[in-house]
Amino acid sequence: MATVTVGAVRERAPGERRVALVPEAVPLLVRAGIDVLVETGAGSGAWFADAEYTAAGATVVPPDELYARADAVLCVAPPDPETAGALRAGQTLIGLLEPLRHPELVAELTGRGVRTVSLDLLPRTLSRAQSMDALTSQATIAGYKAALLAADSYDRFFPMLTTAAGTMRPAQVLVLGAGVAGLQTIATARRLGAVVSAYDVRPASRGEVESLGARFLDVQSPQNEEPDTERGGYARELTTGEQDAQRAALDTHIARSDVVVTTAQVPGRKPPLLVTSAVLERMRPGSVVLDLAASDLGGNVENSEPDKTTVLAGGVTVIGAGRLPSAMATAASTAYARNLVALLRHLAPDGELVLDPDDEITGALMGGETS
Amino acid sequence: MATVTVGAVRERAPGERRVALVPEAVPLLVRAGIDVLVETGAGSGAWFADAEYTAAGATVVPPDELYARADAVLCVAPPDPETAGALRAGQTLIGLLEPLRHPELVAELTGRGVRTVSLDLLPRTLSRAQSMDALTSQATIAGYKAALLAADSYDRFFPMLTTAAGTMRPAQVLVLGAGVAGLQTIATARRLGAVVSAYDVRPASRGEVESLGARFLDVQSPQNEEPDTERGGYARELTTGEQDAQRAALDTHIARSDVVVTTAQVPGRKPPLLVTSAVLERMRPGSVVLDLAASDLGGNVENSEPDKTTVLAGGVTVIGAGRLPSAMATAASTAYARNLVALLRHLAPDGELVLDPDDEITGALMGGETS
Repeated sequence: MATVTVGAVRERAPGERRVALVPEAVPLLVRAGIDVLVETGAGSGAWFADAEYTAAGATVVPPDELYARADAVLCVAPPDPETAGALRAGQTLIGLLEPLRHPELVAELTGRGVRTVSLDLLPRTLSRAQSMDALTSQATIAGYKAALLAADSYDRFFPMLTTAAGTMRPAQVLVLGAGVAGLQTIATARRLGAVVSAYDVRPASRGEVESLGARFLDVQSPQNEEPDTERGGYARELTTGEQDAQRAALDTHIARSDVVVTTAQVPGRKPPLLVTSAVLERMRPGSVVLDLAASDLGGNVENSEPDKTTVLAGGVTVIGAGRLPSAMATAASTAYARNLVALLRHLAPDGELVLDPDDEITGALMGGETS
Repeated sequence: MATVTVGAVRERAPGERRVALVPEAVPLLVRAGIDVLVETGAGSGAWFADAEYTAAGATVVPPDELYARADAVLCVAPPDPETAGALRAGQTLIGLLEPLRHPELVAELTGRGVRTVSLDLLPRTLSRAQSMDALTSQATIAGYKAALLAADSYDRFFPMLTTAAGTMRPAQVLVLGAGVAGLQTIATARRLGAVVSAYDVRPASRGEVESLGARFLDVQSPQNEEPDTERGGYARELTTGEQDAQRAALDTHIARSDVVVTTAQVPGRKPPLLVTSAVLERMRPGSVVLDLAASDLGGNVENSEPDKTTVLAGGVTVIGAGRLPSAMATAASTAYARNLVALLRHLAPDGELVLDPDDEITGALMGGETS
């Protein structure tokens, strides 16, 4: 039986503490006929020591040896130019390569004969691909962490508390965007005892929001008759007047909230603006707005910036979230490594790495290099 | 009817964001025949603007005017020398004056004819004093905040999460000291989904711990027969051998925990050492220890310091908590102001401040100046 060798590199992006493989993943790969290399110090940011990898059956090696021996190089975030430059023809790079945002990286590697497997391109509706879904696993962590950060930044309680000196009312938390991250934020804020409302442009998310004990906002303009069933599940496009009414209704909800968490991201594209400066000015002093979509392309909150917290003149704290999964590096790396184990079992079922572009999953993941 | 005037000063201790009165408290005092002054900017750290106090019926004044007109000066933390120096004979200072820790402050003021009312000295077992219990209201906030900080510093999930990629186990949280703060930490960690254990030297706290869904640790040595009922509710003193066995059992629990929060404080005295450096070395990398008792007198955790977070060589993060209630200034000030309203209604039932040393509550609060 042929044996494939994979190598998990140390992440080099500033502030990135995750690692592609964790010790618990190593024996699962070894059992599948896969040899595992780990770069020296790769796990230290996530509290995994080299000795733990060795004890689990991996070989800890310096980067040169890793690039020389690995058939597939495993990373989390897109590699820096030096790492990318060290890859050679015939080698495969597997990670969250953000091909929509950095198409030049994939193009350059493909041009040199390096194959790329971008976990970002996973077909998320395929049930047999769910165990490989790194975007979902990382968004789950981001959503939980966003709720914790918002609670920690808010100067009142999330839960209602009744004491001898009277009752403290619970926080009114609004979550905009009810995808994987938003739902986890809702669940965590609810766990902490907050009163949670949520909104998403997809009417289908109402059921998921309500099942977590949150209220789904009714900001559809009244003229907007029965959506969904006709038009193949999509609502008809709103008129300008309807959009304005919807916008105004949403703004009123935002202005009344104590805590707002926005989670509307579109892969590789500028996130939609959901909270304008005008609405921020209407919020009460002491309110907290956390923008999970903050990025160098912009965010859901006007003027938010990644990894930056600003207290506005009106006493509203705006938190531009950075890489939240990295801030919970142990859980994020553990979940990511499980996704990679599932993927590697799919790509190398017999101990040999076979990238079949006609396979529904593999073909999609190699999307950047099809043509 | 005579009218008493009270004045809430701006806190001057570094990093102190609380304020003695919040706008919602003002009408309650006015209705009780009490005039309310508030120093300019006093509420800004807790997100309360001067205009809100004015709208609520208070008069916002510069400090000179406040000291000139107020019969009673209201503060949270002990005043700085300048504030204390501005007080005059016949005036009353009301706050958490920490007379056990700073006896010289109360002595100096008393010597000059300034009367002091230290909320720290409240007889906490009197049920009619419960609404004035500022130590309890502030400890509640510290306990909640401690759980949030610990969760935010921990790089895994508190709750158990089951996803397509497998299950994440819940965090094992240990709370040492099950007073007001400890119980609130337990409740909050449980809300977040952690598996919580707790220990307190008072066997009576077992019921409270268990009622919150946490496990009470059995670290009593087996020889320690039925306690409590005989000897007036106190356990007999343990032998040295028994103490060592108890110590070792507790150390084992600490070493196995993912997160430890210590909350054992003794007013005005050095907190007991509960987590030694030797035990910290036995904990897993990525574990978090939060010392709520960290102070300049020492803390529950060896070498912890207030407002300082240290990552030990073994990968354990030790957080010396600072003034946690101040870090949640809006809730803390609101609760404290309610305590003050209850106290002022007791001290000035007919719109006149009467400090009766023979009153069970008032006499205790003036403890520093009895002789």
